[in-house]
Amino acid sequence: MTRIPRIRLRKPYLILLGDEHDPINAKTGFGIVHWRRADVAGQLRAPGAAVDLGVPDLGIDAAADDGVGSLVVGVAPVGGAVPAAWWDVMMDAARAGLDIVAGLHTKLNDNPALVEVAGAHDVRLVDVRVPPRNLPVGTGKKRTGRRLLTVGTDCAIGKKYTALGIDSAFADAGIDSTFRATGQTGILIAGEGMPIDAVVADFIAGAAEVLSPDNEPGHWDVIEGQGSLFHPAYSGVSLGLLHGSQPDAFVVCHDATRECLSDWEHFALPSITECIALHERVARRTNPAACCVGIAVNTSTLPVRKRSAYLEALAAEHGVPAVDPLIDGCSDIVAYVRKTFG
Amino acid sequence: MTRIPRIRLRKPYLILLGDEHDPINAKTGFGIVHWRRADVAGQLRAPGAAVDLGVPDLGIDAAADDGVGSLVVGVAPVGGAVPAAWWDVMMDAARAGLDIVAGLHTKLNDNPALVEVAGAHDVRLVDVRVPPRNLPVGTGKKRTGRRLLTVGTDCAIGKKYTALGIDSAFADAGIDSTFRATGQTGILIAGEGMPIDAVVADFIAGAAEVLSPDNEPGHWDVIEGQGSLFHPAYSGVSLGLLHGSQPDAFVVCHDATRECLSDWEHFALPSITECIALHERVARRTNPAACCVGIAVNTSTLPVRKRSAYLEALAAEHGVPAVDPLIDGCSDIVAYVRKTFG
Repeated sequence: MTRIPRIRLRKPYLILLGDEHDPINAKTGFGIVHWRRADVAGQLRAPGAAVDLGVPDLGIDAAADDGVGSLVVGVAPVGGAVPAAWWDVMMDAARAGLDIVAGLHTKLNDNPALVEVAGAHDVRLVDVRVPPRNLPVGTGKKRTGRRLLTVGTDCAIGKKYTALGIDSAFADAGIDSTFRATGQTGILIAGEGMPIDAVVADFIAGAAEVLSPDNEPGHWDVIEGQGSLFHPAYSGVSLGLLHGSQPDAFVVCHDATRECLSDWEHFALPSITECIALHERVARRTNPAACCVGIAVNTSTLPVRKRSAYLEALAAEHGVPAVDPLIDGCSDIVAYVRKTFG
Repeated sequence: MTRIPRIRLRKPYLILLGDEHDPINAKTGFGIVHWRRADVAGQLRAPGAAVDLGVPDLGIDAAADDGVGSLVVGVAPVGGAVPAAWWDVMMDAARAGLDIVAGLHTKLNDNPALVEVAGAHDVRLVDVRVPPRNLPVGTGKKRTGRRLLTVGTDCAIGKKYTALGIDSAFADAGIDSTFRATGQTGILIAGEGMPIDAVVADFIAGAAEVLSPDNEPGHWDVIEGQGSLFHPAYSGVSLGLLHGSQPDAFVVCHDATRECLSDWEHFALPSITECIALHERVARRTNPAACCVGIAVNTSTLPVRKRSAYLEALAAEHGVPAVDPLIDGCSDIVAYVRKTFG
């Protein structure tokens, strides 16, 4: 069998935070700890760091002794440039036998000194924004197992969070499932995945097929959506991912009060009705049974007293559960999936 | 103003044919001569070559003296591997001051000896399958001038030929237009363009925007489509190209008797009705006025006596001209465009 071209990280992780003071910049680190606490051995902080992920502080030597697999950069460098001190830490970790993992704009593999040390100590430098080589083109052939894809009326509207929440709710319900990451933060959380928006255009659907291979009949892949079919810049990514994922079910992610696409303000957000209809129409090209199984809405900008009525009205209108995944979780969506798919 | 990231070739061309015997393998050379005879200074053939493009045979020194800009590989190497003799010819041409241009799987820029010679003689090695760097993401902002995109019910169904035919028919009608190439053969014919299916997924729409910039109000860009919205492997390319192109008008390319996608036989070809409807629906996201202005059908597999009735029925059903572009040309489509857009 040929090697599957997919990123996979070596666990557990030591999370590099540098001397970060702002929790917002450390959202990757917090995300990993929130969703995958068991994969995190500790955090590595420089003196004076104010951010705390709530996991043990751990040095590189201790981490190596404990069998840590990877040093994961869990913070975004302010201004984009990687501080010199980080490179020193990464060299030390590589010398200690840890893989180095990052989703930085600056590629680990573009630093010759780090590449040399990694080669000498037989560790990997994993840039999770870089897709694997030798991706195939899509086949469109039906795969075994079930698939659920989160889609959206816009970018940055909760598709990753919702997918993680649904995966977690499947686990709570005793149903086998796997979160399938398609963006850098998702890949760092899952420990594997496919940076779908960095794939060459001809291979988008093929990459999505590789990400979500044949599985057991009762197993659900919960696939992190990217972009939006309604987005003037990123719709191609979204359609390729949709066709390659062959979802049996999709969940529409939305924001209760957002009126225009973020950063593309000359485009109105589509309605949920439009969003469901277009996704059903195009998804059925590769899975004739594709249907909407839920609506996940960020309601944080609504007055608290209006939240319930808003979600109830949505659920009644579309005939599927409507939740705010941060507040309600996703168990209602999983219950609906069980009822629909058995 | 920043440099526009778009491939542009230096004309006129000397077309390299090697010792090719099979005209099918030389279809790029024939395409350039057919559509852009004025750009071709001559052909370069090895002794024993049976293929003849019907242009003067010309050596490299004579070509350099005549002011030829580029040596263009006009033939596909049998089996894919570039013969050693071709590399020798390319080195000689580079030493004589010609740019070297090819759409080969093997990249010119991956041959260190050729790269060195090209550097020493200040000529370019242009791999037309390699997209330019620094492409922007799409903005979705409306551009001036008119745009027509050819789309299809499948891949390899006449989108390039139809776009070239419409561009030519615009010229015949005295209307300013530019053929905008999105694939390697189209780029070699046009002398410029964007290999849209080789662009990184996040930049498909942005690349399409770059390809077809602001223009005069009465000018038409005629954009070569790629893939199909109904294709399980390539739909992402097609949607990104559609959204970035912002077409005022599109022409559906079809095959009269093809029943399944070529090489994806488990997918039925969509109907022309479905194809028009889905394109109108999604195209209107970036151009609310987008509409179908014609149907271009390969009727070569129909009995001759049935051709006219078939096309007339299509035209009547959809209310737009239906032509076989190889037999009828595209003047009916251009006449309809004039009537519709003034």
